[in-house]
Amino acid sequence: MAEKIPYKIYLTENEIPKQWYNVRADMKNKPAPLLNPGTLEPMTAEELGAVFCEELVQQELDNDNPYIDIPQEIQDFYKMYRPAPLVRAYCLEEALGTPAKIYYKFEGNNTSGSHKLNSAIAQAYYAKKQGLKGVTTETGAGQWGTALSMACAYLGLDCKVFMVKVSYEQKPFRREVMRTYGAEVTPSPSETTAIGRKILEENPGTTGSLGCAISEAVEVAVGTPGYRYVLGSVLNQVLLHQSVIGLEAKAALDKYGVKPDMIIGCAGGGSNLGGLISPFMGEKLRGEADYQIIAVEPASCPSFTRGRYAYDFADTGMVCPLAKMYTLGSGFIPSPNHAGGLRYHGMSPVLSQLYDDGLMEARAVEQTSVFEAAEMFARVEGILPAPESSHAIRVAIDEALKCKETGEEKTILFGLSGTGYFDLVAYQKFNDGEMDDYIPTDEDLARGLSKLPNVDR
Amino acid sequence: MAEKIPYKIYLTENEIPKQWYNVRADMKNKPAPLLNPGTLEPMTAEELGAVFCEELVQQELDNDNPYIDIPQEIQDFYKMYRPAPLVRAYCLEEALGTPAKIYYKFEGNNTSGSHKLNSAIAQAYYAKKQGLKGVTTETGAGQWGTALSMACAYLGLDCKVFMVKVSYEQKPFRREVMRTYGAEVTPSPSETTAIGRKILEENPGTTGSLGCAISEAVEVAVGTPGYRYVLGSVLNQVLLHQSVIGLEAKAALDKYGVKPDMIIGCAGGGSNLGGLISPFMGEKLRGEADYQIIAVEPASCPSFTRGRYAYDFADTGMVCPLAKMYTLGSGFIPSPNHAGGLRYHGMSPVLSQLYDDGLMEARAVEQTSVFEAAEMFARVEGILPAPESSHAIRVAIDEALKCKETGEEKTILFGLSGTGYFDLVAYQKFNDGEMDDYIPTDEDLARGLSKLPNVDR
Repeated sequence: MAEKIPYKIYLTENEIPKQWYNVRADMKNKPAPLLNPGTLEPMTAEELGAVFCEELVQQELDNDNPYIDIPQEIQDFYKMYRPAPLVRAYCLEEALGTPAKIYYKFEGNNTSGSHKLNSAIAQAYYAKKQGLKGVTTETGAGQWGTALSMACAYLGLDCKVFMVKVSYEQKPFRREVMRTYGAEVTPSPSETTAIGRKILEENPGTTGSLGCAISEAVEVAVGTPGYRYVLGSVLNQVLLHQSVIGLEAKAALDKYGVKPDMIIGCAGGGSNLGGLISPFMGEKLRGEADYQIIAVEPASCPSFTRGRYAYDFADTGMVCPLAKMYTLGSGFIPSPNHAGGLRYHGMSPVLSQLYDDGLMEARAVEQTSVFEAAEMFARVEGILPAPESSHAIRVAIDEALKCKETGEEKTILFGLSGTGYFDLVAYQKFNDGEMDDYIPTDEDLARGLSKLPNVDR
Repeated sequence: MAEKIPYKIYLTENEIPKQWYNVRADMKNKPAPLLNPGTLEPMTAEELGAVFCEELVQQELDNDNPYIDIPQEIQDFYKMYRPAPLVRAYCLEEALGTPAKIYYKFEGNNTSGSHKLNSAIAQAYYAKKQGLKGVTTETGAGQWGTALSMACAYLGLDCKVFMVKVSYEQKPFRREVMRTYGAEVTPSPSETTAIGRKILEENPGTTGSLGCAISEAVEVAVGTPGYRYVLGSVLNQVLLHQSVIGLEAKAALDKYGVKPDMIIGCAGGGSNLGGLISPFMGEKLRGEADYQIIAVEPASCPSFTRGRYAYDFADTGMVCPLAKMYTLGSGFIPSPNHAGGLRYHGMSPVLSQLYDDGLMEARAVEQTSVFEAAEMFARVEGILPAPESSHAIRVAIDEALKCKETGEEKTILFGLSGTGYFDLVAYQKFNDGEMDDYIPTDEDLARGLSKLPNVDR
């Protein structure tokens, strides 16, 4: 009899990856380059260096090296909260009565509550190494801001966080975690920046968006000596750092000779999904294996499923470089739905290219059905999931139920990117039956897309 | 060179204890029996059976069997969130510049946020096995109520929780977690019970206490067919279930041949400390090893350090059996300090006897210094600790700093019983410099102790 797979597969500390995997190296069609919004020419390393740390610029532009060493200091930090467990969802399988075998990679067992710490420590480390004084950033749901605060506290860097206003108000406790880690937290849009004042003037009463908060954070970084801007998602460098998720997941599965048929992750800017699928996508790109890969996004902010693949501004204020990606338009302000981390108008250029090449699929799911999946998962698996992660749970459950109908014993891997301990306002709405399932109309989308920059590339 | 001890020592799933350890079996002086408040005679199994499940009554009264099998169903549930890691606090050691070696057993990596789940699933399991419909309980900080809700959701039992009012108000999100797991949550004291109405009449505006909430929960359990009462601390059975903490910690240390000099845990009712020290205390009682064992309590609720060892009511309403324990008097209502889980007037009879026999010591620490330790720990070890657990961190840091002065390389083990994700109101007060350090006056204590029942045993 084959060895029974335990509930949780932990790698040893020595098995934590010592290199990140750069999926771009294996992509035949590379992600489109970032463009200078003035010249519409690809951003040079020097231009990017005004906003980002030098070493991160190198990583951002590196489409060739498949493996990049993880500095020892980052490896040491990883040991504080990694390896993250790969969990066999025996209880969920039983509750569903499905022949499918469900695994999830759980990245929420740290105080930031999500996978965001994997890139936060990397970006803070390179900023510190460059002798900077501090970094600025935006945060939506708050996981990224918390992660960055933790990394900065550990390294002794200043940290200024612009937090999307709706999350700032719904999650006052997130703010306190960041403050406990010494960060300065400002609700966005704010009166403290020129772009914030402009956005507030044009959209009084706006609840903000990641796009607005990015503009403000970039403005402060560029205008403050010794500061650079860091970003928790979308960028190539972030997907690179997040590859530890997939590398660990794959190593854990390999220990037991398990190959997933299907890999599912939620997608906002793409950091979690991109990290989870990296090594599997690598195999797929190299023709070594095939996997069905599914990005799950909220129906309220459907970049993949209803957006356009085009050059667009990464931010609402249009101060950032242009990125070619699936986008709803940088002017699209999503409804204040509760999966704060998925409220972004764009998508990782790497994932956008892979999606456009037909290497992965996408599904949009509605909020109430997401929380139904979250509640079921919480009760049987004992972990209260983040609303973002619950998008992946929803589709994993749907697929497992299809297996129940067909009798197929598919192996499903999904990313449980975080916990929902700071999302109780949303859970309360769900518990009280007051959740809404807003879906943008075609007119809403047309409005956002009408403002795409006119770039012919 | 000896093998380097990893940051985190995980046992394998097979190494999760399959038996609980009952420290009472090795105690020369057994804990004093619970007394019937009417007859002042030891409670019989039959009498206890009106309040507690049958099998738990057996465990409560069992002073003889050193090991008790953990039923397979409970072992399976344990696999969802155990083994819990034993962490070597390399980062804390470095930050303190101490030659001491610091380890902590981290029990917070589950949605209940603490060790409470270890006993919750056991108590819920035996209730289910007995064919009951549901259970009632009290909760202070909310960890126990959350844990019990999770266990009941898993097994399909009803769960009614009386939550100390101050915590209910400071932690609305705890309530929502419990509701997500299907529990009914009532702030205590409430108008829904006779004893609640009486307490409110006598102490209008009271913020409640565990003692009040216990009375209400017992009243409802006894008055509702198919219900029993369960308790998250104090009782002998709870310490028995919590022995998994110490058994795992010891097994992890044994793997690397490490023997702690000192074991530190916070103490409210004693469940965390009692569980952590069990197997070590067993060795000490059998004369096989010696350990310095330190209970840490809040200066605002100092049962060990300023209480009296005497028979007292376990609850404010005086409906429960009498327990011999270190107590401040069941009428003592602690200040609304933030370590909600440590706001109990009494203490585990087992720990009380061990303390009275000189087998452990106790220290009382003030709130602000506790949060200073918590903040430092959060920043260097990456985990936001529960205020309760931070009492142990405070003394662990103090002891490590003593080692720095003396140059001693002591090995310190402490219990990190939980996370502080639901304690951000308290952290906010600390961040804003508004924390208070209330310490009861001698008159306050005399008032509580003047109401001890007159039992001459």
